[in-house]
Amino acid sequence: MAQRTEESKGKLSFATQGGQGEGSYSKSNSAASKTLSACIVPSLEEFLLHHFSPPQGAGPIYYADFGCAVGANTIGLAKFVTETLKSRPEISERDFLCYFADLPTNDFNTLFNQFPPLASRDGGNGNVEERTWFAAGVPGNQFNRMFPRSSLHVAITTLTLHYLPEIPKSITDESSPTFNRGCISSHGASPAVAEVFADTSREGLRKFFQCRAEELASGGVLAFYFPSRPDRAHPERQMSEDSMQLALWKVETAWRELVAEGVMPEELLDTFNVPNCHPSKEEVEEVVDHETSCFHIQKLEYIHKHPFSPPNPELILKDAQSYAKWWTGILRGGLGGMLSAHMAPELTEALMERFSKHIEKDYLEKKPQFPMIMNICMGILIRK
Amino acid sequence: MAQRTEESKGKLSFATQGGQGEGSYSKSNSAASKTLSACIVPSLEEFLLHHFSPPQGAGPIYYADFGCAVGANTIGLAKFVTETLKSRPEISERDFLCYFADLPTNDFNTLFNQFPPLASRDGGNGNVEERTWFAAGVPGNQFNRMFPRSSLHVAITTLTLHYLPEIPKSITDESSPTFNRGCISSHGASPAVAEVFADTSREGLRKFFQCRAEELASGGVLAFYFPSRPDRAHPERQMSEDSMQLALWKVETAWRELVAEGVMPEELLDTFNVPNCHPSKEEVEEVVDHETSCFHIQKLEYIHKHPFSPPNPELILKDAQSYAKWWTGILRGGLGGMLSAHMAPELTEALMERFSKHIEKDYLEKKPQFPMIMNICMGILIRK
Repeated sequence: MAQRTEESKGKLSFATQGGQGEGSYSKSNSAASKTLSACIVPSLEEFLLHHFSPPQGAGPIYYADFGCAVGANTIGLAKFVTETLKSRPEISERDFLCYFADLPTNDFNTLFNQFPPLASRDGGNGNVEERTWFAAGVPGNQFNRMFPRSSLHVAITTLTLHYLPEIPKSITDESSPTFNRGCISSHGASPAVAEVFADTSREGLRKFFQCRAEELASGGVLAFYFPSRPDRAHPERQMSEDSMQLALWKVETAWRELVAEGVMPEELLDTFNVPNCHPSKEEVEEVVDHETSCFHIQKLEYIHKHPFSPPNPELILKDAQSYAKWWTGILRGGLGGMLSAHMAPELTEALMERFSKHIEKDYLEKKPQFPMIMNICMGILIRK
Repeated sequence: MAQRTEESKGKLSFATQGGQGEGSYSKSNSAASKTLSACIVPSLEEFLLHHFSPPQGAGPIYYADFGCAVGANTIGLAKFVTETLKSRPEISERDFLCYFADLPTNDFNTLFNQFPPLASRDGGNGNVEERTWFAAGVPGNQFNRMFPRSSLHVAITTLTLHYLPEIPKSITDESSPTFNRGCISSHGASPAVAEVFADTSREGLRKFFQCRAEELASGGVLAFYFPSRPDRAHPERQMSEDSMQLALWKVETAWRELVAEGVMPEELLDTFNVPNCHPSKEEVEEVVDHETSCFHIQKLEYIHKHPFSPPNPELILKDAQSYAKWWTGILRGGLGGMLSAHMAPELTEALMERFSKHIEKDYLEKKPQFPMIMNICMGILIRK
């Protein structure tokens, strides 16, 4: 179970897969992630330019991205934060260290080789993009401490707060009243099962904010966004408006068919759960407003049906095959690692193929369009 | 060339190869490295316990290992430094962040998965080794800046200062008077060629100490050891007493035979150079005593014929095959990456096989024994 949870950390509701090949998270999801981050970038920029108080003295400014994964969006956010702050004259000469934090199973080798070269001291030749920040990778679990006390000044986590710290035991225990039979997530599960997911999610939020409160220096900022449901009710219907629901349900349908046909044993389906539950804005508020809270809420918003698009929608929508290939790439990049850890490679392939067929069918029936939508919660908190 | 130099960064006079399989640096060299580190451990311990001034305030203590590679010795040094400092009552409650710095081609994924789990907040169950320090990996080049100004308190580099920042151009240029024809290193090269290696080595030392001076906070300590020659003269005879010379010369002999037999093209040999040159103590002193120096020399010693042993000498010396297998493992782990980048896989294998035969012959003729020996320079510098 621990292993599965370790491997399930990632973005866009699915776990990530390293490397740079087809189906890697790096290739398939970064661009969508980038258009998603538009939900927070203007507010964060305004805050960093006009409200953020840099640490006193001439010491470095420490930035951290929790659940960084790999890819252009990860590096783009670090670049955005450092460039925004460096545009302030009183900060422009300070050194920046950007930490990229994720589970030890994240592909840090790939991430490190994606960094632009460090700016040369003579100013470079101007032809190659260079970075003006030092970089470090930090392996660990964001539901535990990962940094020294009071050592961070700007922290970000994008598309991670809907992950559970672990799959609750009762969910995969056949003898339990909240055994999640025939489902692979909280969405579409029984209300009792979904409530177990939601409880675990709230416990994860508590751990996350408690650890970040210890790690952030006074005046430090914590910014985040994540897929969210409108209120704390009905965790079993949490994804009902999200475009990603399509993939989740098609996987589930494909999987159930393969079980019915005898290709997949039933217990494989019954013991697989995506460790997600989308928290509502009020659940975050509850944690942050807790009596021992160390945060001031600068901004906390629920964004209904935030639109986002892949970078080349016309190519994806060209025909049913292109559309199915794109979704399968997202599924492979996102859920591939978890599936591989759970079942034999030929079963994963069978599932991918069947999923792809369902997506093709959906394309022909519904003529899909972009942008996609997602309900999102975004926030900017200040460490008191 | 840059690529070759990038890939040649490592330990024990050879570049390292990642992963955990047979021939990986992690498996083959860490244990020998550990017995080598005995040359500095007592002095460093004495210094950390009785002379090191921790940074003021309650903030974290930042440690960095430059050229960390992977393996037990890397982690052991971080553990040794943090435990030694934490045994001082006034430091015991401070947080430690250990940075592991190496080229982006280092296998950070393997390193991160070798870390013991972070100590749990409830004290753990006592059955599993836990670490009491936070950890980060830093990809970069130690001849450039890698950290913010004045941000480190304890820095270490073991078996890295004999690496060149690059292979000097003239060495592989057939039209140059210092073309290193028929040799794979400075040892055994012409005096003029070896002097080019030595010049580049001195330039590398200057860059290394200049960058570390910027990165270390006032009062910070920089400890190091590296294979060294007795004085600045005769860089062409720098390894003449070292046990590692055996491997270097057998590779060269094997390679020349394969060229003579037409198996290898001659230009492959003429364009391959191990980017090493062993500096003498006086060359380090020159750099550190430079008029702009920011260091105080706490200790700087040349250790003539420092002995070190692998962990299981009797198994290695059992017979010629075991002995040859062990050396080939070191060669593969150390030089394998560089060779693979330089020639086709089947040529690398041919070279390994021929090398192995020569080692077997050497065993039968000379009945080798442990410990091995290496001339070493070790130092402890304080940032003024």
